[in-house]
Amino acid sequence: MLGYFQENKRIKMPRDLRRLFNPRSVVVIGASRNPGAVGYGVLKGLHTGGFFPCVHGKPFPGKIYAVNPKATNIQGIRSYPSINQVPGKPDLAIFCIPAKIIPMVMQDCIKKGIKNAIIISAGFAEFGEQGKHLQAELKRIIKGKVNVVGPNCLGVINTHSKMNASFGPTMPPVGHIGFITQSGALADSIIDWSVTERYGFSTLISFGNGMDLDAADYLEYLGRDPKTKAITIYLEGISDGRKFMRIAKQVTKRKPVIVIKAGRTESGQKAISSHTGSLAGSYKTYEAAFKQCGVIVVDTVEELFDTAKALSHQPPCKNGIAIITNGGGAGVLTADNCDVLGVKLTEFDELMLKRLDKTQKMHPAYSRRNPLDLVGDALPERYEAALDIVMSNKDVHGAIVLQTLQTMTDTVADAKIVTKIHKKYPRKPIICVYMGGKFSAAGVEFLEEHNIPDYNDPRKAALAMKALIDRWELLRS
Amino acid sequence: MLGYFQENKRIKMPRDLRRLFNPRSVVVIGASRNPGAVGYGVLKGLHTGGFFPCVHGKPFPGKIYAVNPKATNIQGIRSYPSINQVPGKPDLAIFCIPAKIIPMVMQDCIKKGIKNAIIISAGFAEFGEQGKHLQAELKRIIKGKVNVVGPNCLGVINTHSKMNASFGPTMPPVGHIGFITQSGALADSIIDWSVTERYGFSTLISFGNGMDLDAADYLEYLGRDPKTKAITIYLEGISDGRKFMRIAKQVTKRKPVIVIKAGRTESGQKAISSHTGSLAGSYKTYEAAFKQCGVIVVDTVEELFDTAKALSHQPPCKNGIAIITNGGGAGVLTADNCDVLGVKLTEFDELMLKRLDKTQKMHPAYSRRNPLDLVGDALPERYEAALDIVMSNKDVHGAIVLQTLQTMTDTVADAKIVTKIHKKYPRKPIICVYMGGKFSAAGVEFLEEHNIPDYNDPRKAALAMKALIDRWELLRS
Repeated sequence: MLGYFQENKRIKMPRDLRRLFNPRSVVVIGASRNPGAVGYGVLKGLHTGGFFPCVHGKPFPGKIYAVNPKATNIQGIRSYPSINQVPGKPDLAIFCIPAKIIPMVMQDCIKKGIKNAIIISAGFAEFGEQGKHLQAELKRIIKGKVNVVGPNCLGVINTHSKMNASFGPTMPPVGHIGFITQSGALADSIIDWSVTERYGFSTLISFGNGMDLDAADYLEYLGRDPKTKAITIYLEGISDGRKFMRIAKQVTKRKPVIVIKAGRTESGQKAISSHTGSLAGSYKTYEAAFKQCGVIVVDTVEELFDTAKALSHQPPCKNGIAIITNGGGAGVLTADNCDVLGVKLTEFDELMLKRLDKTQKMHPAYSRRNPLDLVGDALPERYEAALDIVMSNKDVHGAIVLQTLQTMTDTVADAKIVTKIHKKYPRKPIICVYMGGKFSAAGVEFLEEHNIPDYNDPRKAALAMKALIDRWELLRS
Repeated sequence: MLGYFQENKRIKMPRDLRRLFNPRSVVVIGASRNPGAVGYGVLKGLHTGGFFPCVHGKPFPGKIYAVNPKATNIQGIRSYPSINQVPGKPDLAIFCIPAKIIPMVMQDCIKKGIKNAIIISAGFAEFGEQGKHLQAELKRIIKGKVNVVGPNCLGVINTHSKMNASFGPTMPPVGHIGFITQSGALADSIIDWSVTERYGFSTLISFGNGMDLDAADYLEYLGRDPKTKAITIYLEGISDGRKFMRIAKQVTKRKPVIVIKAGRTESGQKAISSHTGSLAGSYKTYEAAFKQCGVIVVDTVEELFDTAKALSHQPPCKNGIAIITNGGGAGVLTADNCDVLGVKLTEFDELMLKRLDKTQKMHPAYSRRNPLDLVGDALPERYEAALDIVMSNKDVHGAIVLQTLQTMTDTVADAKIVTKIHKKYPRKPIICVYMGGKFSAAGVEFLEEHNIPDYNDPRKAALAMKALIDRWELLRS
């Protein structure tokens, strides 16, 4: 059954990709003055992004060079007629030139001693027989000499060194989610999405055809990257399943890895064959293999990042949580979703109820059970008293805090309370559901700035809590 | 097994609730000058909302009166010492006074001939034995004389007559979704949410304890309301199951009805018992009963409105659709989700491919199959040519149109094409997934203004399409 995961390379030491993702200097080969060209967008993204790498712990402005035989200056960046004239030895070369001349230029780069390259250009294995030959030729040239991302990809973004080495139009917010994707278009949409949804990223890698480096190599790199706390992957197929599994097994011990695997179904698999030409393989085989090495599998793109958001900021959680709410209905829906997913609600004992009563801050009609319904007129001080008592209980390992909008709701004040209590009990995760939109936005922003994940729907919060519980169980096993 | 759905009232003619939801004049009993009071918020919402009812097809400014023994003018509205002094006979009275004096004031209202009331005040059946007695007493007083919403509710909003007869802080966008909810807090959050998520509502009804009118009565009313095209319900329990089923069976023939039933699980049911005191009943019984009368059951609040959005604007759809995309990965994910849900992808025949080729607008590497991957550089004219040919095919009954963000993507121009083609084939639904956030927002806005539903994730689009297919099958059966 695991036949698809055959080893086809011998086990070897991981490749050093640090200068690929944290270069001190970058050259854009095929930089362009034409706003419609990829070479224009890449150069623009790079210098407007503010490229500021960190070397030996010290940040300094990165160097950017351009190569274009017809220009000496593009967008204010010095341009050279060929790679041979570029001073020094740039850490990274980005290729935006036509596919057929890349092998030749790559040889010049190798002569110059360039060790890392991103090939954005398309026209390789995804493009008929001719393209396949071209890719095979290029592969022979670079083998053992250059680390190559691509070809046919969007490129790489490292938010912490402000490096946009891609033709993505903008940078996502700085954060701790790493994202490896086999689809460039998806990356582009997700970068834009992350701006409105506040997903913070460390490194994004669109690897296209994966001619040289593959998903497993990137996984290994991000597993060691101190800025990355959770790793997300969009996969269509894996060329070397055994390698991926071996690396995933190591990485998941240190960091959570979450995968969305396209081609779960027959329709999806047929679509893949015409997209990247990858063999999708049986989804069941993938699922079993992922599970075996501790990789979390999700069904939607939204779930991919929703889960990563929780796992990158909140600690793993033993099963047994509390739900605290100011709206009964929202509490019921959350209890339902927890139950469906196997997230247990801790039973509140008499002692806890006595402590709650003693605060004299509870409403006479408060629920006296889990979900703890504080009733609609709950002000921040009631949330604080309740949350503090609940979180101090040894059988409560985490909490989902719900807030519905009532006339007296102060979303920012409530968010401050949640943040305060979370600091008091840093080993117990808190996940919020601030139901609302315009009026709750300020509170949500405060929460997320303080690394408390917030979701707009009880199901998403329950799923996030489930991921933290699964993580706890994985690390214990 | 269906024992829970026992009839406890004899079948009778539906009650006329038109003046309750479309009053010409409203009196707020317990209007207040204190910004913390419910009676302040209700009066403010009512007159700042712009209350403008439509009577016999003609709109005219609605009349608002206030009752407060200690004021003659509140927020610029004339106030009377008691209901007896209010001129004429208001169509609707809204109660914001303490529970214990409501029976007395209600008798005055009945004497005056007031036929409709919303009791926002809490302190009835949800509040101990004393409250239960009070509610029973009130029920005796109003029986057969007044239509009562509540008590212990948020109130009612009719966006088309700009009537905010609730203490919701704002009005949701005008639209065609009706919403009946047993949880007031949820309504409040959803109103706020709808502003950012562009869910358009016709009427919102928070019915609290449901002392007089119940979910079935509201369902019957919305079933006849010409402004409502899809009905959404948040339910915890039903007091008269047989009545609900009888009405639902009739209404679902005319309009889609979508329900989220809280208390699906043991944890949820326990939470309900302490929330509204409703008997939740077995979820399986509910599910079977809902299915039997054509009611759609969903799992999350987001799904409730996502489904309603599609059903209120797009026609039912025979199974067999096309997916059109400019991003391969997004196409694969959508195909996967369709497959999981049983949404069939029509196989494209040679003739269709020939027609596509003949336009000379396709990319050499376009997918030549369903999902139709137009490739990343697809400009609006390629989308138009492809969508027109695909939709004209007799075996394609609807389409999911995906757009990922590429350098050359013009989201508004693409949205205009979709709208244009949808006008050409009005009987075939189109559902969009514009993946992105900030950059795609203008395109999404254009789509939704033209009643093309857009979702941020392929799964949601597949779910929406599934609902249209189910609707087609229900109407055919």
